[in-house]
Amino acid sequence: MTDSTALLTDRYELTMLDAALHSGAHERPCVFEAFGRSLPGGRRYGIVAGTGRLLELIERFRFRDEELEYLREARIVSEATLAWLADFRFRGDIRGYREGEVYFPGSPLLVVEAPFGEGVLLETLILSVLNYDSAVATAAARMVSAARGRPLAEMGSRRTGERSAVAAARAAYIAGFGATSNLEAGREWGVPTMGTAAHAFTMLHDDELSAFRAQVDTLGPSTTLLVDTYDIPTGVENAVRAGGPELGAVRLDSGDLLTLVGEVREQLDALGNQRTRITVTNDLDENAIAALAATPVDSFGVGTSVVTGSGSPAAGMVYKLVAKQLDDGSWLPVEKRSAHKQTHGGSKHPYRVLEGGRAVSETIAVAAAEAPASARALHVPLMAAGVPEASAMGPDGVAAAREHRGQAVAELPDRAFRLAAGEPAIPTVYVV
Amino acid sequence: MTDSTALLTDRYELTMLDAALHSGAHERPCVFEAFGRSLPGGRRYGIVAGTGRLLELIERFRFRDEELEYLREARIVSEATLAWLADFRFRGDIRGYREGEVYFPGSPLLVVEAPFGEGVLLETLILSVLNYDSAVATAAARMVSAARGRPLAEMGSRRTGERSAVAAARAAYIAGFGATSNLEAGREWGVPTMGTAAHAFTMLHDDELSAFRAQVDTLGPSTTLLVDTYDIPTGVENAVRAGGPELGAVRLDSGDLLTLVGEVREQLDALGNQRTRITVTNDLDENAIAALAATPVDSFGVGTSVVTGSGSPAAGMVYKLVAKQLDDGSWLPVEKRSAHKQTHGGSKHPYRVLEGGRAVSETIAVAAAEAPASARALHVPLMAAGVPEASAMGPDGVAAAREHRGQAVAELPDRAFRLAAGEPAIPTVYVV
Repeated sequence: MTDSTALLTDRYELTMLDAALHSGAHERPCVFEAFGRSLPGGRRYGIVAGTGRLLELIERFRFRDEELEYLREARIVSEATLAWLADFRFRGDIRGYREGEVYFPGSPLLVVEAPFGEGVLLETLILSVLNYDSAVATAAARMVSAARGRPLAEMGSRRTGERSAVAAARAAYIAGFGATSNLEAGREWGVPTMGTAAHAFTMLHDDELSAFRAQVDTLGPSTTLLVDTYDIPTGVENAVRAGGPELGAVRLDSGDLLTLVGEVREQLDALGNQRTRITVTNDLDENAIAALAATPVDSFGVGTSVVTGSGSPAAGMVYKLVAKQLDDGSWLPVEKRSAHKQTHGGSKHPYRVLEGGRAVSETIAVAAAEAPASARALHVPLMAAGVPEASAMGPDGVAAAREHRGQAVAELPDRAFRLAAGEPAIPTVYVV
Repeated sequence: MTDSTALLTDRYELTMLDAALHSGAHERPCVFEAFGRSLPGGRRYGIVAGTGRLLELIERFRFRDEELEYLREARIVSEATLAWLADFRFRGDIRGYREGEVYFPGSPLLVVEAPFGEGVLLETLILSVLNYDSAVATAAARMVSAARGRPLAEMGSRRTGERSAVAAARAAYIAGFGATSNLEAGREWGVPTMGTAAHAFTMLHDDELSAFRAQVDTLGPSTTLLVDTYDIPTGVENAVRAGGPELGAVRLDSGDLLTLVGEVREQLDALGNQRTRITVTNDLDENAIAALAATPVDSFGVGTSVVTGSGSPAAGMVYKLVAKQLDDGSWLPVEKRSAHKQTHGGSKHPYRVLEGGRAVSETIAVAAAEAPASARALHVPLMAAGVPEASAMGPDGVAAAREHRGQAVAELPDRAFRLAAGEPAIPTVYVV
């Protein structure tokens, strides 16, 4: 694996550059835009994630000897293009939605202003990051509202590619999860980590009680004991025997949680463990979480459904050329005219129109159209002449994104939090 | 990003190790097994992918100063455990299904024989790789059979995490796709790459014909021209004008392909371009590919659906402790007894029972049970005392896996190729 991100892209971007260098069109100033035509799965709103991660990946988009050699040997581009790539680093401007921002169909999430040759190279990398991370964050935000204030932990690393797992943990945290099981997300992005134990740990020992005692001896009584390896009532008894009145939590990973949670709560209370919490983790999604809201569950661990976007594993964003500068210096909006795939040409500035603090529309001013009144501007600078906005990056960027998500979600009308598929919570309006 | 894979794991694996080191149980010889309880989405068979990639990732599962420092600062494990981790590299044995092999519910895809402390650490990494890569390969294999011999290219890098994109390209190739758009998959795994052009390239130029001419001038007439940016019949005309009779192909990325393909074929033929092929790429999945089989389409480009496992983005595999060695040297099968999550204890040896060269059952011999007659043994050695089987790794491993997949799929009965959800093509039988 290479640290360069330059080959995490589609071949056609390099061959388009090759052809544009040949015709001289590669230097034409262009505006590219990343947006989604709709929200996946009839969602009511989306959450932007991946931006801070993307800025770092764009910085590492450099062609070193290793990458150039492959392109030469595989005869993908001409020698002239290889020479151009050897010097390449992205020097354009990028503005876009803050990470953690709410978005809607047509929201121009990222606007790239650069010569064609530079802007075209970033297409795949931008979309890979925004499509995956935003799909996870959008699903995670639904789980957060379904949990009604009870904490959620992301535990799905094993159900997605090993590097996507880190991105998923980061995106779920931005969307309001409280922690992740993924250690690299802790190291790299400052996401709080958590963990319990697996059934294997219980089965390794001669009996359940010895396993629980070994865990409590090492990790202290505030640990979480997994009580469903054999018989749950016996498991709860053993847990209390090993952890005492200070036992932190028990975890249930199987069975009919709707009835089990109440039974375990009663048993814990009867044993004097009123403060021991109950966490559940059995293939939960936002609907299962909502259904459990009536039970005395204390927290949720979510795996597969959050890292796979709960039925919508890609956010469906596309990256399109929307304007080009003509030889006389004027800008021409461009758009594709295929049936069902219309795009809105022109450089855009989006606003969230608010009434009494509540969002009422996503208003997108095209080209030089005027900003609407009583509105929050949605674009912030992300990269200036190839230099990324430092505040959006690293663990600080993640913390800022998580906080901003809280504020942006709080502006949404109540209908945004319906779990059923339907229309976006607010309409998208173009002002030309 | 770090080159070590040691933190691409769940916190609980480290804390279980911590507790087991404390109790001394970490050295107990154990057998862990990776398997799926069912095939995702009612599939008729699965394709194993990721194995060769996984062996490299396990070799890089080392705790260096960087990783140890994080674990110390975040107070995840004790100093004694940190010292143990500093020396850690996996020294156990792994046997399992060959990459590219067909699998069924219960198939023991990977069997890890190691002391508990070593085997437990690999759980998340093993599952991340097998769950994602096999989900992609399993979906891709359905597309390959639906295409009835016409070539498929994987073009979904933009619809999955940027590193998962490389794994997806590799997995789809193993499953029978002919090429990928992903350049890193070409460089790292020897997967053939391909590409056409985007709508942006056409829109960059003053008109469609200039764009096509620039592309043909640079890439030669064998290139593929994208003809649906504006009006398709005009696009085809321009394509033929630019590429001449030797034009390689035209690409359609929108509209009603079922009627369009025939119309474009007629137009190309009438223009004298009988040898110019037609490739289509508009949100295809296995059902759309099957529906297009009656049209004169020549090849398919598949994006979102293949990299997201066509509705089943994770293969649902789990990693379980199935046996442990007792102090007297004997082996004890272990199993969890929760409702709906039963596991079969004991070390296993799987066989594909064949009659007249056709698969009739997946027969799994538990512990020392005898091998069935007329059967192909499914396990091969993958790692011996921590040293990976070199033939399974790198581009050669990918090529071998692709070839083996072809042979294993050819053994399947016809019912395996039904696209509708249903029962596995052959039953899984345990012999105890």
